[in-house]
Amino acid sequence: MLSKAVVKYIKSLQVKKYRNQHQAFVVEGAKSILELLQSDFRLQHLFITKDFLQEHAAILSRGLTYEVVKEEELVKAGTFASNNAGLAVASMRQLPPLHLKPSDLAIALDDIRDPGNLGTIIRIADWYGIEHVVCSENCADFYNPKVISATMGSFTRVKVHYLDLPAWLQQLGGKYKIYGAALNGENLHQLQLKPEGIIVLGNEANGIRPEVARQVNQLIKIPAFGKAESLNVATATAIIIDNFRRHG
Amino acid sequence: MLSKAVVKYIKSLQVKKYRNQHQAFVVEGAKSILELLQSDFRLQHLFITKDFLQEHAAILSRGLTYEVVKEEELVKAGTFASNNAGLAVASMRQLPPLHLKPSDLAIALDDIRDPGNLGTIIRIADWYGIEHVVCSENCADFYNPKVISATMGSFTRVKVHYLDLPAWLQQLGGKYKIYGAALNGENLHQLQLKPEGIIVLGNEANGIRPEVARQVNQLIKIPAFGKAESLNVATATAIIIDNFRRHG
Repeated sequence: MLSKAVVKYIKSLQVKKYRNQHQAFVVEGAKSILELLQSDFRLQHLFITKDFLQEHAAILSRGLTYEVVKEEELVKAGTFASNNAGLAVASMRQLPPLHLKPSDLAIALDDIRDPGNLGTIIRIADWYGIEHVVCSENCADFYNPKVISATMGSFTRVKVHYLDLPAWLQQLGGKYKIYGAALNGENLHQLQLKPEGIIVLGNEANGIRPEVARQVNQLIKIPAFGKAESLNVATATAIIIDNFRRHG
Repeated sequence: MLSKAVVKYIKSLQVKKYRNQHQAFVVEGAKSILELLQSDFRLQHLFITKDFLQEHAAILSRGLTYEVVKEEELVKAGTFASNNAGLAVASMRQLPPLHLKPSDLAIALDDIRDPGNLGTIIRIADWYGIEHVVCSENCADFYNPKVISATMGSFTRVKVHYLDLPAWLQQLGGKYKIYGAALNGENLHQLQLKPEGIIVLGNEANGIRPEVARQVNQLIKIPAFGKAESLNVATATAIIIDNFRRHG
């Protein structure tokens, strides 16, 4: 059974301040838990249901410490409306300093506020083999449970860096081509894009800030064929990266 | 001020049974309200804030009946956590029977359960100039407030049809090419796709049902470059349609 103290601790980790204080975060649901167990994140707590234990006995037999609890307890402690699998608390990890290779394709996010969008973008990056996502400091927090959940396990592989985005782009000093997604950019379908460089995506409502836009070398847009005014930023990220990846 | 009876009516429209009974649905937020006012949907109620009225006085002067209310009242009656614009109740409309043209590109959704996914797909369809989205009967309801909200106004343009999907695909009798998204399909990047036919997307967890898959002529997949096991269905829809639209 989950003690009151543990439930209180887990609940506190919904708030960034307490996540940072404890250097810990929450992982919920079968897919995310399974990916966590196969990653190098260090576990603090693992609570699973009997069903999950039976289904994944092989993985759980590797000397892991866990406690079997009821689904209602997981729902009570966590953020999911239903959770018949598990909930873990893991320690944050320190990333080595960001060092891009000349052949890297990276994503830079300027002021992406919605946790679901950030998580979905991390999942997309993982699908397309993009190792680094660079976030301006005002982006949603990587360790927010909604971000972790939306990545569907990709939080274990993609490296998400928070930094002063305009300053970082500037100090790259022209070594990488910097693309920016904008409605007045060049038509993606008419470009032969080499899968190298940095793709900047801007805020859900306001796009890329001027101080970031000044560092962009080429604006690109997804051509519209209908009447919608815009696309969701995660959707746009996926389409843009797909266009970069089609020219090997 | 919103009367108790009106709040109760609006709240009842969160439930499909009552939406169908009253043939009415709720629209919230600035963007959606503005699109609604420019569409042929018939308004039953329009509640707006003073700020929204001042900003959009020109649109609202066209003989529309509305009532100015406080933001707190909109939040109390509706589903948004914040809403400084407006809330409307509109009457459902009857679509004419679905009749595809030979040159049409249409989307067919098999058992898409998440309202956010359905709404995002409708927005993507609108961006890419796709007029018809065909849904199996067990898909999320088009008039669910979360669907309407996720379309960002595209609910006014895209026509969403609910029908027996396997039977409908079968009676097309080979007149349209039917594509299906599947992880074992052909690599999208290596195909020259004509933007005609029907693209079938399947359930978030289980993909396309066998009885639907039997009607599919060609399976297609988005090539993976990394380690994520899958993409969100709305993300996948966007990437696939973009690939169809790049070959005019």
